[in-house]
Amino acid sequence: MRIVVMSGGVGGARMARGFGQLSEIDLTVVVNVGDDADNHGLRISPDLDTVVYTLAGIEGPHGWGRVEDTFALNEELARFGLDNTFQLGDRDLALKLFRTDAMANGSTLSGVTEVVSRSFGLGARIIPVTDDRLRTMIRIGEGWISFQEYFVTRRFQDEVLDVRYDGAQTAPPAPGVLAALEAADMVVIAPSNPPLSIWPMTAIPELREALAVHPSVTAVSPLIGGKTVKGPADVVMASLGLPEGNAGVAEAYAGLIDRLVIDLADSDHAPSLDDIEVVATNTLIKEPAAAARLARELIGS
Amino acid sequence: MRIVVMSGGVGGARMARGFGQLSEIDLTVVVNVGDDADNHGLRISPDLDTVVYTLAGIEGPHGWGRVEDTFALNEELARFGLDNTFQLGDRDLALKLFRTDAMANGSTLSGVTEVVSRSFGLGARIIPVTDDRLRTMIRIGEGWISFQEYFVTRRFQDEVLDVRYDGAQTAPPAPGVLAALEAADMVVIAPSNPPLSIWPMTAIPELREALAVHPSVTAVSPLIGGKTVKGPADVVMASLGLPEGNAGVAEAYAGLIDRLVIDLADSDHAPSLDDIEVVATNTLIKEPAAAARLARELIGS
Repeated sequence: MRIVVMSGGVGGARMARGFGQLSEIDLTVVVNVGDDADNHGLRISPDLDTVVYTLAGIEGPHGWGRVEDTFALNEELARFGLDNTFQLGDRDLALKLFRTDAMANGSTLSGVTEVVSRSFGLGARIIPVTDDRLRTMIRIGEGWISFQEYFVTRRFQDEVLDVRYDGAQTAPPAPGVLAALEAADMVVIAPSNPPLSIWPMTAIPELREALAVHPSVTAVSPLIGGKTVKGPADVVMASLGLPEGNAGVAEAYAGLIDRLVIDLADSDHAPSLDDIEVVATNTLIKEPAAAARLARELIGS
Repeated sequence: MRIVVMSGGVGGARMARGFGQLSEIDLTVVVNVGDDADNHGLRISPDLDTVVYTLAGIEGPHGWGRVEDTFALNEELARFGLDNTFQLGDRDLALKLFRTDAMANGSTLSGVTEVVSRSFGLGARIIPVTDDRLRTMIRIGEGWISFQEYFVTRRFQDEVLDVRYDGAQTAPPAPGVLAALEAADMVVIAPSNPPLSIWPMTAIPELREALAVHPSVTAVSPLIGGKTVKGPADVVMASLGLPEGNAGVAEAYAGLIDRLVIDLADSDHAPSLDDIEVVATNTLIKEPAAAARLARELIGS
């Protein structure tokens, strides 16, 4: 069975890890690159790396980087007056340095990601949604800022007044993305942040169209008890004018999904929707075993 | 008193450290960049960094990098199939990353070096001999190779058939170099490798001329008992056809120096030279106190 998971960072990585444990699944993970940034001249792709590290079982404890990493280089950057708020671990930096150098020598982001996946012995195909530059920009009271400034530097404390996805309109999906979607028996939009992790991808016209025409697209809601497990998705959705709760998630994916999977904690407030099947189950997938169980439920096995 | 030290790596850094301990000295260190390389997309300047780290008292035990550094990033590079023979410490890499990014954003090597020196609280001015690209190339049996390939990858085991200094002929000295030389009461050519550390600098026409006309240029021989303390200088000099011992050092600097300082162990074989004063003393300057003593002797205080 062929599955494509559309993924942001932590939530998407955990959903992908669920499918990755099922031997009968041919898994492709299409990953958001709207959070990508250049830091100290290095190519930072937070969501891609979180997916790789999570599938390899070496993800960091706080939703970024690697477990048991050290931070000698990052700490030393302060000596030269550099802002080292964005924590870059020494082992994690090896991947960043490899990617930066390979891309400076003509490799694409998807090409590098394929080598990286192989280097970690991963069975799944991990593909950035595009090889082009795509950047999620966020409007706060003081104006437009990058995702990293909003999320890392300002710790998502600002009200999000608007979002835009620079480059998405003209970005072609990376090689393999459309083919994987077309061949997929089911597409799963992971429990990631709809406006900040999934919309950057659906803002790519060809990708949006591929999801719209696909016969089986399931979204897993990022809400549990009306709130997000991690990160500001619920607050951002509200400030962007989406309805509260899973009605908001359904509206975020209107025209794209056929099924919405919500948590049991929200089943009393399940939205009633035309053309979208709503299913309630346990969606807390922090543990690999729980993610595998949810994956099995999603494919009905 | 104004002193300019012309320096390669370890020997030059130790000589500079000797002068750096004398409070009455205004010290400028002009440093070889012929060993510079790009490694994993990073700007590597081995001699500059050895001088900075040695003056800061944090130099590594093997003639490169920093003391008590860790190598997590470097080890991890092997995962991606990269050659990590050139050992890059995590803290050392912070400097490399800062320099690379600053130069990608328009800084010159000399500008970055000034910021780095200040970041380590150094009193001396450290200037790369040029901001232009200058690369020492070495001809072995198999053809021309870079300094780093000769020195690091092949561990200086090949016979050196010829040397050349790509870019030197058209390289202008970095800002401040000629002014420092002109203002110097004494120029000291450090006990570095003549063909591989000093000749790359004297291959720059304006620099060669500045040394030739300077009234007080002292070279400290890198030989002790006819051999080098570290590295292949004696072997390289012989294979390039220079006379054995300090006669070879004198010939390497013919037309440039007024005084040659040799070790007491070589005083029985001191060359007899027209126009060059030969002085014998203890030139082993591994320890900072020994370097300070030699520095004091050189300025006659």
